[in-house]
Amino acid sequence: MVNEDVRSTAEDIAEMEIRGAATIARAAADALESQARASDASDPAAFRAEMREAARHLRDTRPTAVSLPNSLRYVLRNLDGETVATLRASAVDAAESFRDQLDRAQDDLGEIGANRLRDGDVVMTHCHSTDALACVKAAIDDGKHIEAVVKETRPRKQGHITAEQLRDWDVPVTMIVDNAGRRYLDEVDHVLVGADSIAADGSVINKVGTSMLAVSARERGVPVMVAAQTLKLHPDTLTGHTVEIEMRDETEVLSDDDRERLGSPDVENPAFDVTPPRYVDAIVTERGQFPPESIVTLMRELYGDGTTEPWTED
Amino acid sequence: MVNEDVRSTAEDIAEMEIRGAATIARAAADALESQARASDASDPAAFRAEMREAARHLRDTRPTAVSLPNSLRYVLRNLDGETVATLRASAVDAAESFRDQLDRAQDDLGEIGANRLRDGDVVMTHCHSTDALACVKAAIDDGKHIEAVVKETRPRKQGHITAEQLRDWDVPVTMIVDNAGRRYLDEVDHVLVGADSIAADGSVINKVGTSMLAVSARERGVPVMVAAQTLKLHPDTLTGHTVEIEMRDETEVLSDDDRERLGSPDVENPAFDVTPPRYVDAIVTERGQFPPESIVTLMRELYGDGTTEPWTED
Amino acid sequence: MVNEDVRSTAEDIAEMEIRGAATIARAAADALESQARASDASDPAAFRAEMREAARHLRDTRPTAVSLPNSLRYVLRNLDGETVATLRASAVDAAESFRDQLDRAQDDLGEIGANRLRDGDVVMTHCHSTDALACVKAAIDDGKHIEAVVKETRPRKQGHITAEQLRDWDVPVTMIVDNAGRRYLDEVDHVLVGADSIAADGSVINKVGTSMLAVSARERGVPVMVAAQTLKLHPDTLTGHTVEIEMRDETEVLSDDDRERLGSPDVENPAFDVTPPRYVDAIVTERGQFPPESIVTLMRELYGDGTTEPWTED
Amino acid sequence: MVNEDVRSTAEDIAEMEIRGAATIARAAADALESQARASDASDPAAFRAEMREAARHLRDTRPTAVSLPNSLRYVLRNLDGETVATLRASAVDAAESFRDQLDRAQDDLGEIGANRLRDGDVVMTHCHSTDALACVKAAIDDGKHIEAVVKETRPRKQGHITAEQLRDWDVPVTMIVDNAGRRYLDEVDHVLVGADSIAADGSVINKVGTSMLAVSARERGVPVMVAAQTLKLHPDTLTGHTVEIEMRDETEVLSDDDRERLGSPDVENPAFDVTPPRYVDAIVTERGQFPPESIVTLMRELYGDGTTEPWTED
Amino acid sequence: MVNEDVRSTAEDIAEMEIRGAATIARAAADALESQARASDASDPAAFRAEMREAARHLRDTRPTAVSLPNSLRYVLRNLDGETVATLRASAVDAAESFRDQLDRAQDDLGEIGANRLRDGDVVMTHCHSTDALACVKAAIDDGKHIEAVVKETRPRKQGHITAEQLRDWDVPVTMIVDNAGRRYLDEVDHVLVGADSIAADGSVINKVGTSMLAVSARERGVPVMVAAQTLKLHPDTLTGHTVEIEMRDETEVLSDDDRERLGSPDVENPAFDVTPPRYVDAIVTERGQFPPESIVTLMRELYGDGTTEPWTED
Amino acid sequence: MVNEDVRSTAEDIAEMEIRGAATIARAAADALESQARASDASDPAAFRAEMREAARHLRDTRPTAVSLPNSLRYVLRNLDGETVATLRASAVDAAESFRDQLDRAQDDLGEIGANRLRDGDVVMTHCHSTDALACVKAAIDDGKHIEAVVKETRPRKQGHITAEQLRDWDVPVTMIVDNAGRRYLDEVDHVLVGADSIAADGSVINKVGTSMLAVSARERGVPVMVAAQTLKLHPDTLTGHTVEIEMRDETEVLSDDDRERLGSPDVENPAFDVTPPRYVDAIVTERGQFPPESIVTLMRELYGDGTTEPWTED
Repeated sequence: MVNEDVRSTAEDIAEMEIRGAATIARAAADALESQARASDASDPAAFRAEMREAARHLRDTRPTAVSLPNSLRYVLRNLDGETVATLRASAVDAAESFRDQLDRAQDDLGEIGANRLRDGDVVMTHCHSTDALACVKAAIDDGKHIEAVVKETRPRKQGHITAEQLRDWDVPVTMIVDNAGRRYLDEVDHVLVGADSIAADGSVINKVGTSMLAVSARERGVPVMVAAQTLKLHPDTLTGHTVEIEMRDETEVLSDDDRERLGSPDVENPAFDVTPPRYVDAIVTERGQFPPESIVTLMRELYGDGTTEPWTED
Repeated sequence: MVNEDVRSTAEDIAEMEIRGAATIARAAADALESQARASDASDPAAFRAEMREAARHLRDTRPTAVSLPNSLRYVLRNLDGETVATLRASAVDAAESFRDQLDRAQDDLGEIGANRLRDGDVVMTHCHSTDALACVKAAIDDGKHIEAVVKETRPRKQGHITAEQLRDWDVPVTMIVDNAGRRYLDEVDHVLVGADSIAADGSVINKVGTSMLAVSARERGVPVMVAAQTLKLHPDTLTGHTVEIEMRDETEVLSDDDRERLGSPDVENPAFDVTPPRYVDAIVTERGQFPPESIVTLMRELYGDGTTEPWTED
Repeated sequence: MVNEDVRSTAEDIAEMEIRGAATIARAAADALESQARASDASDPAAFRAEMREAARHLRDTRPTAVSLPNSLRYVLRNLDGETVATLRASAVDAAESFRDQLDRAQDDLGEIGANRLRDGDVVMTHCHSTDALACVKAAIDDGKHIEAVVKETRPRKQGHITAEQLRDWDVPVTMIVDNAGRRYLDEVDHVLVGADSIAADGSVINKVGTSMLAVSARERGVPVMVAAQTLKLHPDTLTGHTVEIEMRDETEVLSDDDRERLGSPDVENPAFDVTPPRYVDAIVTERGQFPPESIVTLMRELYGDGTTEPWTED
Repeated sequence: MVNEDVRSTAEDIAEMEIRGAATIARAAADALESQARASDASDPAAFRAEMREAARHLRDTRPTAVSLPNSLRYVLRNLDGETVATLRASAVDAAESFRDQLDRAQDDLGEIGANRLRDGDVVMTHCHSTDALACVKAAIDDGKHIEAVVKETRPRKQGHITAEQLRDWDVPVTMIVDNAGRRYLDEVDHVLVGADSIAADGSVINKVGTSMLAVSARERGVPVMVAAQTLKLHPDTLTGHTVEIEMRDETEVLSDDDRERLGSPDVENPAFDVTPPRYVDAIVTERGQFPPESIVTLMRELYGDGTTEPWTED
Repeated sequence: MVNEDVRSTAEDIAEMEIRGAATIARAAADALESQARASDASDPAAFRAEMREAARHLRDTRPTAVSLPNSLRYVLRNLDGETVATLRASAVDAAESFRDQLDRAQDDLGEIGANRLRDGDVVMTHCHSTDALACVKAAIDDGKHIEAVVKETRPRKQGHITAEQLRDWDVPVTMIVDNAGRRYLDEVDHVLVGADSIAADGSVINKVGTSMLAVSARERGVPVMVAAQTLKLHPDTLTGHTVEIEMRDETEVLSDDDRERLGSPDVENPAFDVTPPRYVDAIVTERGQFPPESIVTLMRELYGDGTTEPWTED
Repeated sequence: MVNEDVRSTAEDIAEMEIRGAATIARAAADALESQARASDASDPAAFRAEMREAARHLRDTRPTAVSLPNSLRYVLRNLDGETVATLRASAVDAAESFRDQLDRAQDDLGEIGANRLRDGDVVMTHCHSTDALACVKAAIDDGKHIEAVVKETRPRKQGHITAEQLRDWDVPVTMIVDNAGRRYLDEVDHVLVGADSIAADGSVINKVGTSMLAVSARERGVPVMVAAQTLKLHPDTLTGHTVEIEMRDETEVLSDDDRERLGSPDVENPAFDVTPPRYVDAIVTERGQFPPESIVTLMRELYGDGTTEPWTED
């Protein structure tokens, strides 16, 4: 019953040919739209069942991704109608509206985040986040002078990408190692980071090192601003699920040769860590800025209360 | 009037052929002893003046080093006698006693630090400190099982040396990047670091990254233990002098090629940072362990009240 | 005009023959249903007036209980219809739906709370809470190994009931006196408690001793999880009402004989204390988990904005 | 197309002949009602366009005021109807309802705030806030004995107005200079202040000195209660806008003569400062009390999500 | 070579017929005096060796007691003389002086502690400490009115002894369970406790529950005062030794019957816990009051630098 | 037996014709010197008794002043000799040495404090302290550029004196009201204040408002530096005495006319408040800088252990 487009999209997601939170989300919405358009369901119940099955099929490709189920939730929650035709139309509309929001989200978020930055401010960044950079870009476009202290972000040094992008916009950049973070906090006005996902309890899951920086920022009196599209909100966490932290390749930390030379120590390489909400001053989304403790309200508004999964309902 | 040994020692220190806090301190004591032995001063005042001049000569080679003036202070403060002969003898004795203490200091410190570690404890280390490792070694020698989480310590990755040494002693080691520090604090019983120097106000100057780790350790409820011989106490700070933080080569952070590729950002590479005493639970020295707020008492006991410099007195 | 069932239920609640937050709430819903079924009101207004009167009658039995008014609010807020018949049907439906939710609430809450617990975790409990234990039970049923440190909870030692229940499920239990709480915080992964009621400002009212434990848990870096059905949300607090703390029998603290022997000191025996939201990491309800600062949103969603009392409206 | 009443109201607001948050808000609602009543728009779209234009005209008089756009938002958001007639009626109704709420708001807020005060409590006030005083008044009217420690609130000493009002109600008052704030915190049960405006991130913008008092209150264990009608919620902040802090006349701080005598120092005289939500225990509004981190939910409920401005939509 | 008095004193200490910190200390001083008086050592070295042996013999009875080695350290450190006769005299003098100080210590400490209490103050006590009570007594004797909130101190309820003593002095007492500690902190002016021993790092080892109370007292803004004679200073901790926490009889927590009935949980019953210096405002000794971070200076002054044990020197 | 100079000095101190900590201290030393020179005591005991009596006489004029007993303690503690002649000489020497130290103290302190200030630093001041200003002056003399944010310091606005002095040295000054303190903390590098006196527990007694500023400075990450000559150390506090806070004239807060107009509120006008040591980073004295927790060691070194009063010994 599952449409061919759904199948191939699912396959591409599973094989990571479709990657990146926004790209995955968009592809899933496309696939559901295709399923809706192609459906020859005989009655509304059958149509809904088909859509749920398609969603389940997509969802199962990467059960821990955060943007994928959000896309599916959005479309399924907006199914509305008494006939197959109206249901189909609502599915198409929902997919379209979801994509529209996706298109605008980073720009909208950037405008909002830029409003928190004053002319002359210095931001400290960790890792590379296009959402975070969108705030800086919008501030520059508003005519503000912004400078940046960029942490290199071991092990993968995504700070280099951040620095390159900022230099490309003529933003003065000072590159430091991660260990120098607290030392330079006294010289910045904001810590500005993105998020991998955001939990119902207000925790921010982001590149490992974020939580240590946020704790020191609070201690030094520097506000912490997290830029994250609502796509990063993680409705599963409403039901208490903790976000699983990916452990990455150990050779990112220590090459095999070095490791052997050092007597073969264990290596652990978590990709992310968890920053409690009490160390974050604001989460900036395309829907506005929120204290982290309130993000759960936005999450429920957008994706349902999380205690039900729209694709498993019967 | 300054003895040849003093001259050549001074030169070697200046040219960094004599390096390392303990090595420099020992060489300075040797040089003063040589000056005392060789002196043909006609009277006590002349002898004292000679000794002060020799000390000044040595001191001027690296005015910001901490172990060098401590060595000089120790010998000059112990000059005692009414005749050139007795003064000379006291200088020789002082140099000898200083060296003796130096010989024993790390072992004594290790024993004391080991007493803070319980069987089965896990320590988190930052950078490479032989004083800190002496505590682990003494604990192992006492039959305790100790494990370590070793932060790699960018930019120079001295954590590799630490890991290698610990593995050599068969200590189970988990190597992590610095950014993962807070994530692994929940799994350790102590943060254990050395010190570059310790100020009168109880601040610990140590490898950059220490202060961020210490702040997070306090937040996570993990005690922070600093292992530092009294040689690291910095009497200049008694008079309010702040410890100057060395800025190291920028290519340690970013190679010239990378830097150009990234649009030529600025780079800052401070070697150390300053951890306020309120984030340190104990400073372990060869004279016992102390709360950081009390270290000033030990400093004044060993090196005088710091408001006078023994080599500039007339 | 008030139905006999309402009267007898009210009497039983007043005389504490009906006890326990859930039991009271269910009985009140039953009574309102009975009132609705039996009503011979001539018009919708009269029916609504009868229902309000019945609710008022029930409410007046224990004005400070929290589950009782929530049950009444729920039914009255769901009255809907233009005729007596449809209003009656809506009342019956609401009572039924309320009871259904009540039946499922603890199980649902348990599932959600269990998701916060990892295999191998150790929880510290205070007092006895079936909501809190439901989380442990669900975690065990998921195949996780959970251990518990159980505080005895003077004066009434409800920790004994908790220990007995946990042992019955084969959970390894370590029993400690309340004073040993902070000492054992270093060995647990969560503090897990229930709630007597939860206020609009996010405060958790629970067995006396909870707040001291929560403050120490924050200091030690241990997350605090409160398990509480939405029945415990206290809408009166929306209007600034503070929750009155019951003072219990002084002989629970000191027998009359001991008291006389000790020179007749005063004794105070508050049943509960108030934990500010900043010391609580998550409130787990059957509707999902929430930061305590957001619970007010759920409270208004379920029970109205609290500035009006549905039983006093005309 | 803009009505004469709108024009004259706008003029009066611009020239500050209409002043005060509530007065401005009421006048704006009146003006929109007048515009609606007088409209001879030929179709709904034209009517809506007229209303938006009128709102824009009013808004442009003082773009940084907080109550003005809230009034406009309220009326525009409640426009509802398919014909000019029904739209007009909805505008009139909305204006009326807005004014009604305004009339009741301070009383309602006072009742709610009073519930937080117990008989015998002592409050510490900063500046002069009729919302804050309404809480004290309602508590007195409930028969509670309340005392006050009143900070004088340099530079304009609005504490004098507060003291006079409280004395008029026979409240025992102790007047202190602002510097004595922390010294007397140990003798009070609440810090009770008003707000100039409240931001989406939960920050309270209030008379300069509030934030220092709130930080010390937290340190001393004294709860901080902010009394503020929902009129003070600042929807612009949802989009990241920071509230601009007015700099007042420097002679309030230093007379010209004194200034010259002292060697012509610079003077800065900000009217307000920003208190982060973590130092505020509750915000009391006429809609109930809220943790500051949840106020954003109320803000969106009343005034829309802030990412759109109802007067600029086309 | 060891004197009979030494032998019998050692036996009595070992068998706990001599108990209590002060009593043990006095007996040890007596024994050393007896040894000195009875010695027929032929030369000073022999006399010293005898004294060391006697001290070692006494010390070995209870190696973890704190007052015993302090007594021995005091006498041995004051041995002074070139002949057996003068050495003997110095031993006798030292023993006498130690006993004199012991006699006066609690009174002196009480006077000092009383000076911290103002007329009308309320203190909260934990466990039973004659040093702490001496402060209250001296304050009363100075004519101050003092009241007390007494925590019962499970498991052994030494709070009863405290309450009885205070009532005997006509001090108004409110008895509470330990769990009510934080609830009543808002009504007291001081937390006043004794100490089992005090470590070089400023930690206070005292009856289990002290640390949780002290953490909450800091959070509530209530100063914590520890009353402890210098006899409680623990010089072993100078060398990093942690104070071993005695585990007491498990039946104090749970009777055998109850334990079986509850499904045989584990029980842990530590006698003491460790309060970090940052939660203590002052340690009151008979030598004056000290910040806990400075107590190490007093410790070294009285008992030597701790890195040497006077009874093991040769 | 008390010398005429002693009598007249005592009278002048009592009548406040001799004022200011340093002036009083100097006069007292002069008087004791005069007493010593004029003494015709027949034997050493009589001489000592005379000196004690003279000291007592001086001390009784203002028992709560801090510099007066320090001066007396210094001279009496340095009495040394076996004959009246040598005792007299020692008294004269001590008085002279005390005065010499007094002469140099502020300069020495200034040099030390200046070392904490870097070129370009901005300091925030509270009240007027010549010790604090000496640090700024020495920094300027070292060629550093220093700027200042000066709090006016109600009620007496001593900030005006500070501003005038700083302007006189061409220091750029920004004058603010006290309430704006926290707002401007983000723009300064140090809080720099003096002290009225310093207690054994490390508390700093200084102009009211200091503690609130220090608490906010810690919260904002700004170090707090207290400049205070050792004359301000308060040995009475060693014995637990709290420093009595002077209540000043109420008309400084509110003129009689204003007070009547406002309904005759109470007024409280404490001159000082108490800043706990945990909010102070360093106390800068002429003997070096110290963590506040270590100042007790310096206090005992200079003035004895405080448990004895040299003028009351027999």
